Amino acid sequence: MDSLYDRAAAFFHDLQSETCAALEAADGSASFSSDRWTRGESRGMARLMVDGAVFEKASVGWSQTEGELPEKLAAQLPGNGQRFRATSVCLSLYPLSPMVPTAHAEFRYIEQGVGRWFVGGSDLTPYYFFRDDVLLFHRLLEEACRRHPAVADYARFKTQCDEYYYLPHRGETRGVGGILFDALDGGGRDDDIDAVFDFVVDVGRTFLPSYTPIVERRRDEDYGDTERRWQLSRRGRHVEFDLLHDPSTAFGLATNGRIETVQRNLPPLVRWDDDVRTESGSREALMISMLEPTDWLGLDSD
Amino acid sequence: MDSLYDRAAAFFHDLQSETCAALEAADGSASFSSDRWTRGESRGMARLMVDGAVFEKASVGWSQTEGELPEKLAAQLPGNGQRFRATSVCLSLYPLSPMVPTAHAEFRYIEQGVGRWFVGGSDLTPYYFFRDDVLLFHRLLEEACRRHPAVADYARFKTQCDEYYYLPHRGETRGVGGILFDALDGGGRDDDIDAVFDFVVDVGRTFLPSYTPIVERRRDEDYGDTERRWQLSRRGRHVEFDLLHDPSTAFGLATNGRIETVQRNLPPLVRWDDDVRTESGSREALMISMLEPTDWLGLDSD
Repeated sequence: MDSLYDRAAAFFHDLQSETCAALEAADGSASFSSDRWTRGESRGMARLMVDGAVFEKASVGWSQTEGELPEKLAAQLPGNGQRFRATSVCLSLYPLSPMVPTAHAEFRYIEQGVGRWFVGGSDLTPYYFFRDDVLLFHRLLEEACRRHPAVADYARFKTQCDEYYYLPHRGETRGVGGILFDALDGGGRDDDIDAVFDFVVDVGRTFLPSYTPIVERRRDEDYGDTERRWQLSRRGRHVEFDLLHDPSTAFGLATNGRIETVQRNLPPLVRWDDDVRTESGSREALMISMLEPTDWLGLDSD
Repeated sequence: MDSLYDRAAAFFHDLQSETCAALEAADGSASFSSDRWTRGESRGMARLMVDGAVFEKASVGWSQTEGELPEKLAAQLPGNGQRFRATSVCLSLYPLSPMVPTAHAEFRYIEQGVGRWFVGGSDLTPYYFFRDDVLLFHRLLEEACRRHPAVADYARFKTQCDEYYYLPHRGETRGVGGILFDALDGGGRDDDIDAVFDFVVDVGRTFLPSYTPIVERRRDEDYGDTERRWQLSRRGRHVEFDLLHDPSTAFGLATNGRIETVQRNLPPLVRWDDDVRTESGSREALMISMLEPTDWLGLDSD
């Protein structure tokens, strides 16, 4: 039987293919390019779709990276030693329409010495607030977690996501959240890390059904220059998060130095305007008011 | 006689006014807004001009900040203790035309315990290469340094600028450089720090004559969508520098937490495209080939 590393790498690769195929179908116009790369002991496949009918830019990357971690970074990770290998899939979707939310998901399996664990998550960043979209996204993630009670905990993962994607200098969450899990190692037992992998497979396959229905609902909503400008300005938050704060960017630059990977996950077009004011009662003000940790599913059941 | 702090603050304030007036005149269409702010013991004036005939965005900020430095940051600075005060002027200019270079300059006086020093510099980022522009910019800086031989050294300051604005993950300097000086304290002697201040005044007043003639030369050059797209894409380097690397951003966020200040100095509109390829022999390839430390004035005298 293949090692967990090989199985994880194969699953992430399949997930990349399935995701790209579904996003092409949803777009209906553009298609993904494929760029196979190698760098030292690392390799990967970058897939990118740009200037589509729905997606201004969609990046879905797969990689296997391997090498020596910088000493300082190695000490911060749960494994031991500087030698590591990792495999991951990472997607960042930037729709053209401000009515269709940006989505991000990332799953990674890491081995460092005898340590091995999964990290990952999935989160949604709308530019305009539609409660039904947020509920669908969170509900499917909650259900996926509930199918794996031994290893997954929606409430905890949701809180971790809210905390991770909080921008302290803005006093805002990046979007409406999702889930994020860190260092899931199943307590170091083989059976249990297999259970973690089962969960990662399940939650990885949850991304498309939690997102593509939102695309279908919102793709034909009207919008104009005001909404587009608002979207471009809000996209700046993604850049600030990725470049100022994201430990994952730091990990990527430290382990493979591929700025292309960072660049592919940045928005295609961004504005930085002076204090963007949002009129009281406007749809933009409503969106901003939602950018704090919120118990979406709890609210729903009230 | 006023303290050095008060004199520096007053000069930086005057320089802000003079610079804004000259940039409005150069623009001929838009004018600067003024936003006076206070935050705790700190205060400042943000001035911004947007959507002009020449300048898509021009930010010229003045501030006096005061308070306690975070312990870690305090230890990295040349003074002593955590108590500090600083006054600065900082400008970032983003012309609409890709033929007119972006310029940045920043001058700051800092007191930390008994330590006191100036930092600052001025640098140019063209999107298309015009040798005469680069030579004018550097020549005036070199002459300003030469007028203050006891405290200023163009060759050293130029090298420091090249090193500071080097983007390791891109293998490029941010632009064609300029000068940067760090911790100029005149050896801690009153007369000598006054000589440093005289230099800062001189080099601060050098910015406009080193830049506005370039604006005049280039403002009517033709360009199209290709050049504009190239400019927007190159502007991403500014964002990457400011958010990933700039110790000055980290200092600003740590001492006054005003993300607005960071935001005002970011480009108005930015693209991140997948690997932007530059055709061999193109003007874009020529520009890229210039993004390494170059002895501009030495080349000129050959």
